[in-house]
Amino acid sequence: MNVSKIKGETMSYNIEALQLKVAQLSRKTHELGIPVMILFEGVPASGKTRLSNELLLNLDAKYTDFIATKSPEAHNLRYQFLQKYWNTLPQKGNINIYFRSWYSHYLDYKENQIKQNQYSNYDVLIRQIDDFENMLKKDNYEIIKFFIEINEEKRQEHIEQTKENPLMKWKVQEYEKVIPQDIYISEMRQIINDSDDWKVIDYTERKQAIENMYLHIIERLESAIDNFQTHESVIDGNFNKNFSTSLFDIEVPKIHKKEYKDQMEILQNRMRELQFALYERKIPLVLVFEGMDAAGKGGNIKRIREKLDPTGYQVHGISAPTDVEKNHHYLWRFAKEMPKSGHVEIFDRSWYGRVLVERVEGFAEQAEWKRAYKEINQFEQMWTDEGALIIKFFLCLDKKEQLKRFKDREKNPDKQWKITHEDWRNREKWDLYLEASYDMIKHTNMNEAPWHVIPADHKKTSRIKVLQTIINRCEEVL
Amino acid sequence: MNVSKIKGETMSYNIEALQLKVAQLSRKTHELGIPVMILFEGVPASGKTRLSNELLLNLDAKYTDFIATKSPEAHNLRYQFLQKYWNTLPQKGNINIYFRSWYSHYLDYKENQIKQNQYSNYDVLIRQIDDFENMLKKDNYEIIKFFIEINEEKRQEHIEQTKENPLMKWKVQEYEKVIPQDIYISEMRQIINDSDDWKVIDYTERKQAIENMYLHIIERLESAIDNFQTHESVIDGNFNKNFSTSLFDIEVPKIHKKEYKDQMEILQNRMRELQFALYERKIPLVLVFEGMDAAGKGGNIKRIREKLDPTGYQVHGISAPTDVEKNHHYLWRFAKEMPKSGHVEIFDRSWYGRVLVERVEGFAEQAEWKRAYKEINQFEQMWTDEGALIIKFFLCLDKKEQLKRFKDREKNPDKQWKITHEDWRNREKWDLYLEASYDMIKHTNMNEAPWHVIPADHKKTSRIKVLQTIINRCEEVL
Repeated sequence: MNVSKIKGETMSYNIEALQLKVAQLSRKTHELGIPVMILFEGVPASGKTRLSNELLLNLDAKYTDFIATKSPEAHNLRYQFLQKYWNTLPQKGNINIYFRSWYSHYLDYKENQIKQNQYSNYDVLIRQIDDFENMLKKDNYEIIKFFIEINEEKRQEHIEQTKENPLMKWKVQEYEKVIPQDIYISEMRQIINDSDDWKVIDYTERKQAIENMYLHIIERLESAIDNFQTHESVIDGNFNKNFSTSLFDIEVPKIHKKEYKDQMEILQNRMRELQFALYERKIPLVLVFEGMDAAGKGGNIKRIREKLDPTGYQVHGISAPTDVEKNHHYLWRFAKEMPKSGHVEIFDRSWYGRVLVERVEGFAEQAEWKRAYKEINQFEQMWTDEGALIIKFFLCLDKKEQLKRFKDREKNPDKQWKITHEDWRNREKWDLYLEASYDMIKHTNMNEAPWHVIPADHKKTSRIKVLQTIINRCEEVL
Repeated sequence: MNVSKIKGETMSYNIEALQLKVAQLSRKTHELGIPVMILFEGVPASGKTRLSNELLLNLDAKYTDFIATKSPEAHNLRYQFLQKYWNTLPQKGNINIYFRSWYSHYLDYKENQIKQNQYSNYDVLIRQIDDFENMLKKDNYEIIKFFIEINEEKRQEHIEQTKENPLMKWKVQEYEKVIPQDIYISEMRQIINDSDDWKVIDYTERKQAIENMYLHIIERLESAIDNFQTHESVIDGNFNKNFSTSLFDIEVPKIHKKEYKDQMEILQNRMRELQFALYERKIPLVLVFEGMDAAGKGGNIKRIREKLDPTGYQVHGISAPTDVEKNHHYLWRFAKEMPKSGHVEIFDRSWYGRVLVERVEGFAEQAEWKRAYKEINQFEQMWTDEGALIIKFFLCLDKKEQLKRFKDREKNPDKQWKITHEDWRNREKWDLYLEASYDMIKHTNMNEAPWHVIPADHKKTSRIKVLQTIINRCEEVL
């Protein structure tokens, strides 16, 4: 169907044809697995509800969701600014309609000075929004943004219509919004002018508005489908055959058993105190563990947890993604598990799998893992912006020591389950993992979320070192 | 390992051996796919935290979760009493440790008269708990319940230890609990006496307590593993070859187009008013649509939604469960989507799939779908207990009319996507679906959540009838 041909015929026919066309295209994006996000911003009573509802009713309910943004309540504020949008991200082929979006959310924060002690400047949130949208767009998410305008006379008509009905009067109060209308409009105008991807729609003429909305969606979905089809993939870990680094060759002394026991007790007690201090100060803590197989990630995590209050932390053992996880942006399954204020989330392997196993095994294309460094930095910054402490450990094992541990595990009936064919396969790719790890540390060693490379040949020494590092980093912020 | 042999050796060896044994058994339940739920109840400072933490640290973090029950905040109260426990149900092979459980939650409700206008009597919640546990047990969930006691002197010691540390003082306030201690104890004693599946553990002697905990878990996991292995399945739809019913043979007149349009407008406007009225009165509404393929479920739902505020309802198009969904109790994926107060959830197919498609196609064993009637009634009652309105529609199509609609869909390029091989396959099993539908209506036609059988041969007539029914049912409760 040629869009230009639709125009010029009778208005009512137009809309029906456009509805049909959008329904067709959305089935196509569904089949192809393109996720679509459609945002509706606009002043109260502008026709945002009517327009978004028109669209909602025309899409297949099986894969369409309607996400409304409201002013945050106290419990919402315990989470990161974009948390809700991460959690509700559409999966491949699904469509989310946003009734108000992260833009209203941002203006609500700014206008009402929410978490003002946290942000030096509310531009931080605009940067987060840019980062969020960009990483989604690169993953084939199609983001379509509408701003609905209306003349004031017509808007008052809408309000009066609602007021007349006694059962719906309460709804009118919602128009006394959290953001004064003039500020909302001038701020949104600024945002729209600074960008080229907003479609402004005047709702004064209802049918014209619907037509414009559909025409714009058709254009965007068609382009998304075209771009998707021409997408070329390169699967290549891009490894340097002569890679060499001394980053992981750190010798450390063995610690004496008695000294270990004494130190461990002191550090664990301190760790427990710090857990409560972080809770009181509402600081979220993220601990990330990466490193060679059998380097002792689990054992380290066990020592950290031992005296913690279990109601305040969670351990996430990360393995291959489920089907549902594969159908989302790769950061989605981690974003959902990031801590609320005062909580501790411990990741036994993490989002860094994108640039480690996914790169080495070819699960991610070259373009994907290469851009992941930046995305991961942006992702972590979303939480450090909120005052979260992110501490990343790379546990570094000597290749011979790994062999010894693998063999020990195989011999011990209570440890056999810990060793699998996969561990042996990974070992064969030792150099590739080393290079990937080196690149990872180089590209994601941010000031606010630095890596700590921990020699792990001596289990006890590494555990003391890890606990000391966490305690030092916590004490810096407390 | 023989448990009796462990006893009598030195205490410290015992515990290590017991830890090892529990770790082994939990790997076995993980492999077999047995979900395990371990509850810890007990007065504050009894040692509940220490004991549950001892267990938590000994289990594999990859499949163990720690779920703490706290006094509900305002936003939690918008959901059904057991909602949190439904949402966090362990999947097959996983272990949940509950720090306080639905029993503390119940006592909190009862003692603080939470939602007292809703429940005639708080025994309603005990009945819900029984139903919840029973349906899980029948699905191989192993539920292990501990009640921790301690002598008062030792308890005061625990409290003093905490008070001494300035960073942890705030924690002591938690001991000023939402339920007075004497009431908590006497109520819990009653619950424990009325049941035979609680294990009471005295924490006055720490090592003895740990030993007793592990011994009990070993016993329970071993029995769970044995029972799981001897489990026999019968896959059989149990159909009567001479089934006949007149339940679905209802003739209705065709409605005139003009009359339909006029009535529809009135009904939809009323529907919108009722949505707001339900919202104001905080009544959740659940609409369930079942019926033959092509009976018009989607078209009906579209007419219901057309004038509703999209921020207050959601449509759930139910298809085959995902891998993650299959790894939970079959009601889990629906429980998560049930409405909070004042919201509307519309199910296009539903949990009734258990006794329809799963029975007919043999996806559920005979024992499973047969007990599902009762489970579904109990499930729905959990929400009607909270004042939810559940309206269930069975859209009933003539076999010839279905054929006509299938052929129409095949001819129309914009409707072809609606018709699949599966629809034709289901049609071949028409009589089996009819009998399953008949049995479903017979066994789940509860007073509080009755079925409405709607003749669907004339689309317009059925839409009017469905809307009228919803409006009548809503008006009854408003």
